[in-house]
Amino acid sequence: MARGKSQTQRSRSYESDDHERGACEWCEYALVITLATILLIGVSALTIFWVFYYRGGYAWADDTPDKQFNLHPTLMVAGFITFSGFSVLLYRICRCFRRIYVKLLHAIFHALAFPCIVIGFLAVLDYHNKKDINNFYSLHSWIGFVAMGLFGIQYAVGFFSFLLLLICNKGTAGFRASLVPIHAAFGILTFVLGVAACLTGLTEKAIFGLGSEGYAALSTEAIIINAIGMSVVAVAIVVLYTVRGTGGYRVRKVAAQHPS
Amino acid sequence: MARGKSQTQRSRSYESDDHERGACEWCEYALVITLATILLIGVSALTIFWVFYYRGGYAWADDTPDKQFNLHPTLMVAGFITFSGFSVLLYRICRCFRRIYVKLLHAIFHALAFPCIVIGFLAVLDYHNKKDINNFYSLHSWIGFVAMGLFGIQYAVGFFSFLLLLICNKGTAGFRASLVPIHAAFGILTFVLGVAACLTGLTEKAIFGLGSEGYAALSTEAIIINAIGMSVVAVAIVVLYTVRGTGGYRVRKVAAQHPS
Repeated sequence: MARGKSQTQRSRSYESDDHERGACEWCEYALVITLATILLIGVSALTIFWVFYYRGGYAWADDTPDKQFNLHPTLMVAGFITFSGFSVLLYRICRCFRRIYVKLLHAIFHALAFPCIVIGFLAVLDYHNKKDINNFYSLHSWIGFVAMGLFGIQYAVGFFSFLLLLICNKGTAGFRASLVPIHAAFGILTFVLGVAACLTGLTEKAIFGLGSEGYAALSTEAIIINAIGMSVVAVAIVVLYTVRGTGGYRVRKVAAQHPS
Repeated sequence: MARGKSQTQRSRSYESDDHERGACEWCEYALVITLATILLIGVSALTIFWVFYYRGGYAWADDTPDKQFNLHPTLMVAGFITFSGFSVLLYRICRCFRRIYVKLLHAIFHALAFPCIVIGFLAVLDYHNKKDINNFYSLHSWIGFVAMGLFGIQYAVGFFSFLLLLICNKGTAGFRASLVPIHAAFGILTFVLGVAACLTGLTEKAIFGLGSEGYAALSTEAIIINAIGMSVVAVAIVVLYTVRGTGGYRVRKVAAQHPS
């Protein structure tokens, strides 16, 4: 009853998914997934390479605050871009899986992102305190703060609503189905804010790390930092394309059919 | 024939628009439009206020390069955010207008954005040359360069395809209809890249203008620069929400019915 009601309520947001996919559509599907996977792994790999090759690697000790700071860009890119991006993409990749497995994979990838974001945040907080720098003064930090807050709320609400409430499957089907588009919209917003935080953060780091004149000289390191930023932009384009296209209606349609 | 073919080809991307809109939907519609208008005008107004109150206003002379630079953020925010944002929103506002008038308004708002972006670009190019600073070294400039390129291509293709080709209305209907989703997708991409360029540019300006320690002290000017950035983020959320929701399918459906 509840499921039927939710279907009627939200039927205007569904698009047709009744036809078999042709060769062209499967080619596009494979291309997008391959490209997204390369970019998502590549952006984190490039960040790690940059830190080891130009920034002295990682550490967490009182006498090496700069190495401790390096955890911040690495873990934030991993959390907000790589793991979150893969988590969003799973709705495209795992078409033949049972719904509950897709949801668990979605939750697991976000569970991997969670400690990255928390430790990445603590790393920069502790770095600021050690260096006696104010916290939350920059546009980057404001955007990042909103992104982290949304990520936490989304994870808590998603975990509670789409996994824990399954103990009362039938009774909560309508509620869960009505929550799907909200969860999806705020999930995309969180991802986009994470991207914006990464881009402003990379700009800050390039200027602070290389100096304004050093950055303007466009050294190899500057090119690598810019390349990380452009890769983040490319990831955002591919992931949003996936969600915006057939991926989007796939999520909505499956959610309507199986609101659990 | 061409129209029928295009409808069949693209029918899977339409959502139902057959029902009359209820009071709630009209309230949401009015709220989003009002909010978007306030934000779109507000973000440019705040930028102009910031420049006059903290940055000495505008000029274009050899002895005042800093005042000439001020044209860059102001005109880029006006071009990429305010005028482009209004242009996108028009597809939501002008429901009762004839299609050709909506297209002309869309073209006019982009025509207002065009000189803003060109003069804003020339202002910073000339400023860099006067101050002997390299061009196109930063992540901000790379993102901005792609955004400007896309804007130019979109304007040229849009003007040629959706206005000039009307001289051969029937013969080009199929081509024009097939171009609508591509034009819309690249239009959204251009807007989002413009937003990313604004955010990275504001971060650069805050650090260069206030100094790293001055920015960290979070003066009133720093708060205003951050507020401009957060307003740009808010604009992006509202405009993308409008395009993503009923606005999106409105464009697609109308385009299919009247591909001219």
